[in-house]
Amino acid sequence: MQESAQPPHTDWDADAVCRQIAALCPPLEPEAVPLHQALGRRLRQSITAPEDLPPFDRSAMDGFAIRRDDPASRWVVVDRLRAGDWRPRTLQPGQAVAIATGAALPCAGLQVIPREFVHDLGNIIEIRERPPLDYIRRRGEDARAGDELVPHGVILQPGTLALLASLGHTRPQVTRRPTVWHLTTGSELVDPAETPGPGQIRDSNSILVQTFCANRGLQIRQWRLPEEEPVVARILEPARRGDVLVDLLLISGGASVGPHDFTRNLLEQCGYEVVIARVRARPGRPLIVARRGRSLAIGLPGNPLAHWVCLHIYVDCALRAWEGAPSPTPPWKTGLLTRTLDAAPDRFETFWPARWCLNPEGRALLEPLPWRSSGDLTALATANAILRLPPQTGPLTPSAPVSFLPLNLQP
Amino acid sequence: MQESAQPPHTDWDADAVCRQIAALCPPLEPEAVPLHQALGRRLRQSITAPEDLPPFDRSAMDGFAIRRDDPASRWVVVDRLRAGDWRPRTLQPGQAVAIATGAALPCAGLQVIPREFVHDLGNIIEIRERPPLDYIRRRGEDARAGDELVPHGVILQPGTLALLASLGHTRPQVTRRPTVWHLTTGSELVDPAETPGPGQIRDSNSILVQTFCANRGLQIRQWRLPEEEPVVARILEPARRGDVLVDLLLISGGASVGPHDFTRNLLEQCGYEVVIARVRARPGRPLIVARRGRSLAIGLPGNPLAHWVCLHIYVDCALRAWEGAPSPTPPWKTGLLTRTLDAAPDRFETFWPARWCLNPEGRALLEPLPWRSSGDLTALATANAILRLPPQTGPLTPSAPVSFLPLNLQP
Repeated sequence: MQESAQPPHTDWDADAVCRQIAALCPPLEPEAVPLHQALGRRLRQSITAPEDLPPFDRSAMDGFAIRRDDPASRWVVVDRLRAGDWRPRTLQPGQAVAIATGAALPCAGLQVIPREFVHDLGNIIEIRERPPLDYIRRRGEDARAGDELVPHGVILQPGTLALLASLGHTRPQVTRRPTVWHLTTGSELVDPAETPGPGQIRDSNSILVQTFCANRGLQIRQWRLPEEEPVVARILEPARRGDVLVDLLLISGGASVGPHDFTRNLLEQCGYEVVIARVRARPGRPLIVARRGRSLAIGLPGNPLAHWVCLHIYVDCALRAWEGAPSPTPPWKTGLLTRTLDAAPDRFETFWPARWCLNPEGRALLEPLPWRSSGDLTALATANAILRLPPQTGPLTPSAPVSFLPLNLQP
Repeated sequence: MQESAQPPHTDWDADAVCRQIAALCPPLEPEAVPLHQALGRRLRQSITAPEDLPPFDRSAMDGFAIRRDDPASRWVVVDRLRAGDWRPRTLQPGQAVAIATGAALPCAGLQVIPREFVHDLGNIIEIRERPPLDYIRRRGEDARAGDELVPHGVILQPGTLALLASLGHTRPQVTRRPTVWHLTTGSELVDPAETPGPGQIRDSNSILVQTFCANRGLQIRQWRLPEEEPVVARILEPARRGDVLVDLLLISGGASVGPHDFTRNLLEQCGYEVVIARVRARPGRPLIVARRGRSLAIGLPGNPLAHWVCLHIYVDCALRAWEGAPSPTPPWKTGLLTRTLDAAPDRFETFWPARWCLNPEGRALLEPLPWRSSGDLTALATANAILRLPPQTGPLTPSAPVSFLPLNLQP
């Protein structure tokens, strides 16, 4: 195991942490769910066409079906087919059937003349102009029975769900959602709605973790607790006893003296083995990753900016690995800096809140947002990306290529 | 009004449709909601700092506070401050206070020596190395009272919500959600779980519209109805009478003969004024846009590919305009084609399902997905973008720049 080869006290770089987390989080089992619950989830089966698509020759237009070999320019309308109708008949020369888009053709050897190519005289139609095509969607034209239509592993979006519905796949196999518990500890924390007393601060990590998970379709359980081991251990007791499977336990350390040791001791007390205890990256250096059987615990350093970074890099990596993503590590991209970045060279990898966009030529541009310390949350007001600076990066000039993680598409 | 200048029968191009829809959808009123309900919604106020941030000088590290003018190399630890503590005291030379990250400094004129720079002998500390900085986050360093921290109009993401929580803004003003009703009409439609009889097809538009809206945080009401005006009109009666305000009425036409006329007549029957009745773009040419007071109705052509395109281009435009987006029209981008696109020149603008990604150099690449007709849904399996071809575009070669709308970030 990699964690035995690299003891927890050793410094890990962020990529190594992600690889280790991915290795600790094999895909969770699939479950069959109704289509509306499958939105945004990863498909764990491949979907094939149950029959030829379309299953019969269909009209591609509203119009009139006639025999392909019929040279007439005037026809008697002998039937009218709506999309739901199914009335096979053999057409004779001089006969036409009014037909709606999508309706099954009444026999073989036909062509469809769209409405706009004829004069409609009631039960008689006359040609205005011979159309260039036959306007028929042929059986099997889109797919043959057995063809793979939706590959294993895609994230189910509305269009994919519509395709599944059209095929009658109404309970696709998707990865089950992990159970997530989140404990925020810290004696200095008060509810955001309260006015902090001297030395107190409002708890902003609870809403951060809750909404980060909500964006991934996860409803989580949360507690805000004093930094007292018996109190916290009591909450964790059902999980420790095995009465509840908690796939992911997140602990937001307070900023009291020794929060890192507090989380570490707590996790060890609850039977977790600490795998990673410190990361060569900032913010979020005092990260803790631990495991107990199939349960993963991540101890997040107290300040919200470190939380924000660690959630999007490390926690998301665990969630993607469990989901069954082919590459669960963060999908770092390259973009061009829009302005000078006056960062002093740092011996650690550094993550910056940033804004990205696609410029009119389709290039990713990155604007680092000003922030002074890991306690400075003001950059989070508008950040939509995380910029990554390798160790010893010095000041960067505009147009320098940089590595970044886009968080959303919004401008 | 633009709709009087351009009668409904005239053909509109897609951009003109979007501009018209945006003009018909002024921003909905704001409402105050709790933070967890504000996720993904547009902020309708500007948030300023209620006080200096941080509100007092704070330690930036776990360490020991000493007087800045104290030349000693050995100190007696006279107090220990956790983050929640607030015990002002004037330090004498030779005295140190152990202090946690984030804790308020006990008096002015201090510096913090991080733990790793001292030998900790219990109640005595000895210097190992003088640190280069003072490790203090000063009052007002991040923002001054009254500074704007979150601008009006941002979409509230988890990081922004954490910032709001830290400021005590627990009920931000955001745009209220529109009420959306969706009617699917068509006598040939059966539930996706049913096996269609001859000529019948499974209804895939209901799940498409439901999950498209769910992705935007909207829970909608839906009905699947036969294409019979009295039946449909009965459902709409409470809205017509004004008992319910339906901001957006979506009608998915069936594929029966004359679905366009059916929707049009139905809307006029219910008091809607048809503003747009046909679009110079494919798929989705027989689009209907109508209004009745503050209510907008959009009639979507029956086939799911046209639905998929029209939802992402026109319906999303209405939703963004109501939300208060600064530019509600679709954020078209430019990307480079990855392969030849053998499209015959068309007299209409054409939309294609496509896949986009950022290549390693940070350029947007576009792969058009094969599709044969508007009844072919197989491209929706993996599409994450809509490619737009202007009228008369001929075949395109790899690396040609094309206009596209990215739908999500997922690969």
